[in-house]
Amino acid sequence: MDDMTMRSRLMTARVAHMATVSGANRPHVVPCCFAVRGDTVYSAVDGKPKSTRALQRVTNLRANPSATLLVDHYDEDWTLLWWVRIDANGRVLDGGAEFENALTLLGAKYEQYQRDAPAGPVVALDIHTWRGWP
Amino acid sequence: MDDMTMRSRLMTARVAHMATVSGANRPHVVPCCFAVRGDTVYSAVDGKPKSTRALQRVTNLRANPSATLLVDHYDEDWTLLWWVRIDANGRVLDGGAEFENALTLLGAKYEQYQRDAPAGPVVALDIHTWRGWP
Repeated sequence: MDDMTMRSRLMTARVAHMATVSGANRPHVVPCCFAVRGDTVYSAVDGKPKSTRALQRVTNLRANPSATLLVDHYDEDWTLLWWVRIDANGRVLDGGAEFENALTLLGAKYEQYQRDAPAGPVVALDIHTWRGWP
Repeated sequence: MDDMTMRSRLMTARVAHMATVSGANRPHVVPCCFAVRGDTVYSAVDGKPKSTRALQRVTNLRANPSATLLVDHYDEDWTLLWWVRIDANGRVLDGGAEFENALTLLGAKYEQYQRDAPAGPVVALDIHTWRGWP
């Protein structure tokens, strides 16, 4: 898969799966909405009711900044399968200009956020590696 | 989400996302087909052409057996979102009765495997924790 296709598929996907690692070296994975600017992926912890465990990704990134995020297509015709995965260093934003810009970007991509704005924090993933399959 | 709903949603999902951790404590996530028997999830490295990186989950599990697997539903109506996640200890099966049984189970769930049988190895995830949202 060429670079332009990888970027286009990442930009336009509506949901991704983000994996992080806990301080005890256990994996964690969540589905998430996200937006991309340049080589950074932004995702917000939104305002919907969640258990405290929903913040596991934030706790994990504070302990270990390694993160990976995958967008993929499943189809019963397995010749149509694809995925794009980015490996990244994660940062947790609790406020400031980048935080506000991320919320604006997320609101522009998802009209759902215009009714129910995410409260944050925002996770910022600085991409260092792109992979695509096939 | 009650236990019966969690199990039913895991059993019937066609694709899951499996996360593991590398020896260097970096997260890895892949979409995968899978089948469940009792409290074990089985997934095979299939016969489709893959780069050597496709085996990262196997390398990771040999170094760190912690694994997590998530099935989820995305919908533009965010009141319909749900996910089920299991945390597990992973084992890599290269052959034997459990390996053969896993391939049979996968073949029964996915007719695609009847045309293109997975070569293995098989990843077995022994579930120790279930979570569901909402």
